Amino acid sequence: MKYCHDCGNAVTKRIPDGDNRLRFVCDQCEMIHYQNPRIIAGCLPVFEDKVLLCNRAIEPRRGFWTLPAGFLENGETTADGALRETVEEANANAEIHELYTIFSLPHISQVYMFFRASLLDLDFYAGIESLDVKLFTESEIPWDNLAFPVINETLQHYFKDRKDDVYPVRYSEIIRPLRKPS
Amino acid sequence: MKYCHDCGNAVTKRIPDGDNRLRFVCDQCEMIHYQNPRIIAGCLPVFEDKVLLCNRAIEPRRGFWTLPAGFLENGETTADGALRETVEEANANAEIHELYTIFSLPHISQVYMFFRASLLDLDFYAGIESLDVKLFTESEIPWDNLAFPVINETLQHYFKDRKDDVYPVRYSEIIRPLRKPS
Repeated sequence: MKYCHDCGNAVTKRIPDGDNRLRFVCDQCEMIHYQNPRIIAGCLPVFEDKVLLCNRAIEPRRGFWTLPAGFLENGETTADGALRETVEEANANAEIHELYTIFSLPHISQVYMFFRASLLDLDFYAGIESLDVKLFTESEIPWDNLAFPVINETLQHYFKDRKDDVYPVRYSEIIRPLRKPS
Repeated sequence: MKYCHDCGNAVTKRIPDGDNRLRFVCDQCEMIHYQNPRIIAGCLPVFEDKVLLCNRAIEPRRGFWTLPAGFLENGETTADGALRETVEEANANAEIHELYTIFSLPHISQVYMFFRASLLDLDFYAGIESLDVKLFTESEIPWDNLAFPVINETLQHYFKDRKDDVYPVRYSEIIRPLRKPS
């Protein structure tokens, strides 16, 4: 960030009065430009004993398998965002049961929220951000070719919890070295 | 948003190629400026049979009682953000047990996440954003003077769940008319 989006003048990074963190502050109009973590909402869409995964057509992790998920948009609920991403990436009709896994990833300032969902039919196909969309049984899951640790952990929880058909909500933190702040 | 924070030229609101939503896009450098929901992380700090509440010194809802909570910052976990806010607003030493309530509020593009926590001592006092900080038993809770619906709901869940000492994570959505987008 170099310029104030309200008045167009230069911003500098400093600690505003009454604050304790470096922020981008406009030298002219004094507007403080806060930057906050973003939410990624997604689904774990299940059909009978299979889970739907998408093969990523975009970076990062192009060619790796993921659950349908993406940045939550202003004006939508977390569950609606999860369903929207399931349509955008897999053109899949799903219904949500419950919030299932939540991951806090401070090094990239992201919070993931996955909902358990059921596929309502098999009329799914790859969206523009997917190379392929497929159903996988537990033994077919491409564990070494999953896109992100949060996908791996969500699937591991699911196949374990499925044995008892009890799915407690799980919050966990994935800690890596902080990325250099922009 | 009127100016690009990267190059300082004017932005206009339009749907970028390959997108389906109006975004602020720079007319000069084509940078797309995404705006996304923010997370508010907080604690439900408990000491014996009492809950700690803060009386808000700032708008909105100055003079009303709230659980310590505030915007999650880049680079911190959701739980760490909840603890930080508990220090900032109540100078309270607490330890977190578990994630407890999650509220999606699409009309203000916010997601609240409250953690159950125990107060470690009684050396708390009002921070700069609080007029007062106090412990309340269930019968003392100022139900008509709570700051936000999410506080009311979290406390109601807590006193109910406390009877069985079982605290399932609860996700819910609070739906109101959408605010006019900025």
